[in-house]
Amino acid sequence: MFQLRLAIFAAITCGMVGQLSAQAPSTTDPLPSWNEGPSKSAILDFVSKTTTPGSPQFVPVPERVAVFDNDGTLWPENPLPFQLAFVVDELKRRAPNEPQLAADPMVQAALAGDLAKLLEGPHHDGLMRIIGLTHAGMTTDEFRTRVEAWLVTARHPRFGKPYDQLTYQPMQELLRHLRANGFKTFIVSGGGADFMRVWAERVYGIPPEQVVGSTAVTKFEFRDNGPVLVKTLDHIFVDDKVGKPVGIHQFIGRRPIAAFGNSDGDHAMLQYTTIGNPRPGFGLIVHHTDAEREYAYDAHPKSTGKLVEALKDAPARGWIVVDMKKDWKTVFAAEPANR
Amino acid sequence: MFQLRLAIFAAITCGMVGQLSAQAPSTTDPLPSWNEGPSKSAILDFVSKTTTPGSPQFVPVPERVAVFDNDGTLWPENPLPFQLAFVVDELKRRAPNEPQLAADPMVQAALAGDLAKLLEGPHHDGLMRIIGLTHAGMTTDEFRTRVEAWLVTARHPRFGKPYDQLTYQPMQELLRHLRANGFKTFIVSGGGADFMRVWAERVYGIPPEQVVGSTAVTKFEFRDNGPVLVKTLDHIFVDDKVGKPVGIHQFIGRRPIAAFGNSDGDHAMLQYTTIGNPRPGFGLIVHHTDAEREYAYDAHPKSTGKLVEALKDAPARGWIVVDMKKDWKTVFAAEPANR
Repeated sequence: MFQLRLAIFAAITCGMVGQLSAQAPSTTDPLPSWNEGPSKSAILDFVSKTTTPGSPQFVPVPERVAVFDNDGTLWPENPLPFQLAFVVDELKRRAPNEPQLAADPMVQAALAGDLAKLLEGPHHDGLMRIIGLTHAGMTTDEFRTRVEAWLVTARHPRFGKPYDQLTYQPMQELLRHLRANGFKTFIVSGGGADFMRVWAERVYGIPPEQVVGSTAVTKFEFRDNGPVLVKTLDHIFVDDKVGKPVGIHQFIGRRPIAAFGNSDGDHAMLQYTTIGNPRPGFGLIVHHTDAEREYAYDAHPKSTGKLVEALKDAPARGWIVVDMKKDWKTVFAAEPANR
Repeated sequence: MFQLRLAIFAAITCGMVGQLSAQAPSTTDPLPSWNEGPSKSAILDFVSKTTTPGSPQFVPVPERVAVFDNDGTLWPENPLPFQLAFVVDELKRRAPNEPQLAADPMVQAALAGDLAKLLEGPHHDGLMRIIGLTHAGMTTDEFRTRVEAWLVTARHPRFGKPYDQLTYQPMQELLRHLRANGFKTFIVSGGGADFMRVWAERVYGIPPEQVVGSTAVTKFEFRDNGPVLVKTLDHIFVDDKVGKPVGIHQFIGRRPIAAFGNSDGDHAMLQYTTIGNPRPGFGLIVHHTDAEREYAYDAHPKSTGKLVEALKDAPARGWIVVDMKKDWKTVFAAEPANR
């Protein structure tokens, strides 16, 4: 009986404290690295209207799916997409011990930075060759070990930091704000799923099962110590352009209500999220306008991640275009996280 | 100041109530449909040892991945896998209005129940034909509507109930017990992902993004009302046998620590989960031994889901073999859930 009375008293007391706290206005800004303006307001409004009970645009928790492109949206993609930097660094690491690899003309092109040569031909055979050399033939565990080791030692040629310290701080705050409001955050990227899954949970709080990327099948082998999966380049699925909604359907099975990208590779994903969606949809494009703190590009023929069609469509579709120069107080985290 | 004192008092009180409750022994059995015995004990022990702080086999929450086969493991697969019943019922529904379909010899074979004819040939052309007729050419939304409508009206030929009321109650309790202990429950099935995703969240508490099944690519089309995805049979991935670990890696990206199946189609998945896994692994086979309440089969040549190799391996590998007749107090839910 005492236990019951105590429980009732505690419940009433805890309830009262909750109500008293709710009456005090909250002064915590969930997006402190964002300057006040239309981009920041649009984000906060969308999260609020889809998550506040009683709101006409309320979306039940299981349907709060937010999808993020990675390269150029969550971290930079210059001077090369970082996974390509991994490829080149791996070839550099292995060439001294593997004469056959060192003699390969495409390996030499990669080590010389000759991107044009790698991209020659309708199927970019050179590029596929060096991707095959660094992404196939090893087990998934061996690949993971290689990526982890690279992340520790590799440095961005301009910023001089490890790559996993170069994520966009405003986007990290956005990820956390969404999750704090019941959203599941996914990556939907043209980059390799296996590559991203090594570090996305630690770096973005996005677990492997929520990373959708380009994939190939693995080969199941029963070895002495037990089963392993060997990476191949068979049945490649490229999670880019119209491949993104296709990948979203195949790997997630739900239509997102919020999509974040930076290039025409994200155009179909933005359309799929915001047009003809029975739920409210939100689209946002990160526009690279800041040559001083990062890189400024969209339709430049030599740049990665061309942004033309999606930018044209944005006003009519109501997609938010983030001006990195104007909208972001800071681009990268000020202090490197302790390793 | 009052608010602070109240908060402190409430915290202490709530804490005290929590402790008092913890001291009273819990008498709730999380698996009431399971008879006491080695199967039930093994399940409870595994969950306890991997989730109790301080246990030498403690597994951090993000790694608590449990994978379940569906047909024969979570619900029956006789007299036909239920998705095949959907195919036949769909053909039955459409034949009166589609003369070309009605004239198709393979449709006629399906309507006559001539499984042998459908399975003729190395590629089972007849079966692929009727799967194509019912699983390709429509949008994903149209397909969803068809499956939902079928679930409402269709009845199992022996049990006379809607198919979604024929899940195994002991396995439903197991799913809930795992989730109550921080596990993420996934389906990993040879059945169609799109088919299962229509109802798995409502029926099993397993959301679409946690359903891994056989898939094909969809085709992105921008129609008048906006983007749609049209189902095809292109680039089919069959999530069965060695395809299960391959699918687990591609769609989940984590090695499971618990796997539940019922046939040799789950053998590789059980191996992948329990052999050479740096984390503790648990494997369980549902053995169909109960002709009276369900079906008794394993290696019968005419049965679905042959069980030979996995059963042989089970003792040496420490996989739990559930004897449905002995281990389950009840097979199905006693009362149908209100529709």
